[in-house]
Amino acid sequence: MSPMELYEEVTAQGEQVRALKTAKAEKADIDAAVKLLLKLKVDYKQMTGQDYKAGCPPSENSVVPDNGPTADGADDEDTVNPWSVSTTNAKGVDYDKLIVRFGSSKVDKELVDRIERVSGQKPHRFLRRGIFFSHRDMHQVLDAYEKHKSFYLYTGRGPSSEAMHVGHLIPFIFTKWLQDVFDIPLVIQLTDDEKYLWKDLTLEDCHRFAVENAKDIIACGFDINKTFIFSDLDYMGSLPEFYRNVVKIQKHVTFNQVKGIFGFTDSDCIGKISFPAIQAAPSFSNSFPQIFGGRHDIQCLIPCAIDQDPYFRMTRDVAPRIGYPKPALLHSTFFPALQGAQTKMSASDANSSIFLTDTPKQIKNKVNKHAFSGGKDTVEEHRKYGGNADVDVSFMYLTFFLEDDEKLEKIRQDYTSGALLTGELKKLLIETLQPMIAGHQERRKQVTDDTVKQFMTPRPLNFNI
Amino acid sequence: MSPMELYEEVTAQGEQVRALKTAKAEKADIDAAVKLLLKLKVDYKQMTGQDYKAGCPPSENSVVPDNGPTADGADDEDTVNPWSVSTTNAKGVDYDKLIVRFGSSKVDKELVDRIERVSGQKPHRFLRRGIFFSHRDMHQVLDAYEKHKSFYLYTGRGPSSEAMHVGHLIPFIFTKWLQDVFDIPLVIQLTDDEKYLWKDLTLEDCHRFAVENAKDIIACGFDINKTFIFSDLDYMGSLPEFYRNVVKIQKHVTFNQVKGIFGFTDSDCIGKISFPAIQAAPSFSNSFPQIFGGRHDIQCLIPCAIDQDPYFRMTRDVAPRIGYPKPALLHSTFFPALQGAQTKMSASDANSSIFLTDTPKQIKNKVNKHAFSGGKDTVEEHRKYGGNADVDVSFMYLTFFLEDDEKLEKIRQDYTSGALLTGELKKLLIETLQPMIAGHQERRKQVTDDTVKQFMTPRPLNFNI
Repeated sequence: MSPMELYEEVTAQGEQVRALKTAKAEKADIDAAVKLLLKLKVDYKQMTGQDYKAGCPPSENSVVPDNGPTADGADDEDTVNPWSVSTTNAKGVDYDKLIVRFGSSKVDKELVDRIERVSGQKPHRFLRRGIFFSHRDMHQVLDAYEKHKSFYLYTGRGPSSEAMHVGHLIPFIFTKWLQDVFDIPLVIQLTDDEKYLWKDLTLEDCHRFAVENAKDIIACGFDINKTFIFSDLDYMGSLPEFYRNVVKIQKHVTFNQVKGIFGFTDSDCIGKISFPAIQAAPSFSNSFPQIFGGRHDIQCLIPCAIDQDPYFRMTRDVAPRIGYPKPALLHSTFFPALQGAQTKMSASDANSSIFLTDTPKQIKNKVNKHAFSGGKDTVEEHRKYGGNADVDVSFMYLTFFLEDDEKLEKIRQDYTSGALLTGELKKLLIETLQPMIAGHQERRKQVTDDTVKQFMTPRPLNFNI
Repeated sequence: MSPMELYEEVTAQGEQVRALKTAKAEKADIDAAVKLLLKLKVDYKQMTGQDYKAGCPPSENSVVPDNGPTADGADDEDTVNPWSVSTTNAKGVDYDKLIVRFGSSKVDKELVDRIERVSGQKPHRFLRRGIFFSHRDMHQVLDAYEKHKSFYLYTGRGPSSEAMHVGHLIPFIFTKWLQDVFDIPLVIQLTDDEKYLWKDLTLEDCHRFAVENAKDIIACGFDINKTFIFSDLDYMGSLPEFYRNVVKIQKHVTFNQVKGIFGFTDSDCIGKISFPAIQAAPSFSNSFPQIFGGRHDIQCLIPCAIDQDPYFRMTRDVAPRIGYPKPALLHSTFFPALQGAQTKMSASDANSSIFLTDTPKQIKNKVNKHAFSGGKDTVEEHRKYGGNADVDVSFMYLTFFLEDDEKLEKIRQDYTSGALLTGELKKLLIETLQPMIAGHQERRKQVTDDTVKQFMTPRPLNFNI
């Protein structure tokens, strides 16, 4: 039961008590109803951490408090926020737990089947394999779509360097698929202002990285007639509507709230403190009058890694207060570093991931040297006991990039049984990554400065909503 | 001595001590030098409230702590910040004390004489009468001007309603004079975003007020070839350079700092917390590339009421850290409410001031009914003891608006001696205000929508810098 459903149950029970009293019912009946009401209020407080207050529905930011180690002390809390992701578990973050903590919903078989039904397309491997594992309001988006009410997509990237690695492509690969199967417009925000505020970089560098990253994004194959890519540093100064939404959001979020959501402190600069409103603004369709002609009622769907969810929890809290629909979300798991799912990929460590600029030889060397193996120490042991695919980074990467479900399952079985050796598994990954990266580099080469400029120019898009 | 001068003296004395030690001077000489150094450090701590730290010049925000009643308990602290001005003194705020508290400099006879010399014009009555009473770096501006290095003017208005009163004109009357005598460009910021954040108003209303207020401002007679008026809600979305400066400033100011300067709390919205950067940005010439062609080194002079100084103390602290010159300032006293200098003018109380839309009859009635009088209760007593011009609002208003110095002085003497009765004084004020307001209304009528649009369109201005 969600906090909102429980809230409604408490409200209904309160009305029931009033009705019984008004009707001068039996004392025993009234007492029983009051007792249930009190129990529900205790449940509500436990679930939301806040007292039930009539007329004040629960905020999405009051989620189940879930700090400290679990009762059995087996695992510590994973850290997941826009600036830091860490876990002590070799399999990576406990995503089921994260769904409970964040108050989102699981992408279950029913939802995946429904996406298949509604889109008429085989679900993307990221859906089939639980890589986009969590969502908010996805059923609502599909309900509306079935009634011929369309939606638009919004995703983004923080351009902290020129170099992007394969993990950065996940939201873009998936967003392109959504764009294709639903035939809808897409806006892509490059938060160069954010990177300036958080990093020791100049504004000029951040903006340059934004344009460079746009090239890699375009190389994913987005439809130029349906896609608008923008740098905050440019777009804020391109038309007044975007800033107007930023100010509206900034008026409805307090320092206390961003402190609670993002962990800001009094020593943080005022730019960081107000930035969340800038990441929130593209969730509202009238931030793009050139695309939506001033309409503010077009539903937004945001595919992103789950570390970005705090921004959109905040956005969803603010939306009804400024008269806009809440954006829906599809959350992905994190892409693991070569060194293992509990270590963080680092832009400064070239060996922590495969970069989009890597040569076939670099790819081969990095996988062979650095990809954390779930295999046993010796060939003999491996043959006897088999490898652990759950912690093997090569296998994880194949889960992201190998399209063939049967082949992937066979690899898993052979590796687990010991029939497939670590070296052989790595070879399979190398053979998957090399043509993928080479293809990306080929497409990126085709992206001219003029194409980038076209994608980044505010303009009408071609779609029916 | 300013905190900066004292800082430099401490630094010099420190070097002196080191030099003596290096030279193996007499112990008595070294001891004496050390003793002086320690004394200077104590002085520095007393003046700035902070310990001397080599390499850390004093911040403009560390001014003499001056809280609580004075030793003799005669007067409480005046409250002066951008949102609240109050005093218990019928003569109004103690401005000399404010200069000490804010760490600014007095506009003394020497400065007024110098402005006359440099501009070749008789100083404006606001300078002759101490209405612009405080400044920062005005001598530096004049030094540069004498060396043919020009500057630009920046002033503004928070458009909280359609109605402006005569007090709102003070910075504009004075800025127009400065523009005329120095022949320099002027930018006028209408902070409609600020009003939206602080008041219970819609964005649309705030923006409409901005355009209405622009008409009253234009009616002051600004040169369209040298003046750019902008609404934040429009200008932020007009070109990227303004937002880039806003972000630069926002990166260099922490929540702690705005808490200290403006008294923000954790319950304030993030829009308020980051707004000071938006009021700061026009202080830097590259916020207006259409005017200054991207140059960031053109000195800015800001004439404003002193309650706006906190914004610019912050701006001056940030400026050198982002490579821009500090803006200079000229601060005015406050324009008193009709009910007296210790009450606040209220836009919601039509009787608290003379509005620019008032008819001659309304002006007459308001002055006669509401203008606080320094006269005695009866004609007999008044003739015998005389009136008190220092607390008489009609006399204060004449100080602002009556150009003739001799006539003003004669009025003061006659009123003080009892020769001039309150009714007669009020009549003189009415006769001054009526044609002034009528003239303003006449000029405002000439301001077409097209003129407003021209003034508010980002464009090159006509000047030599």
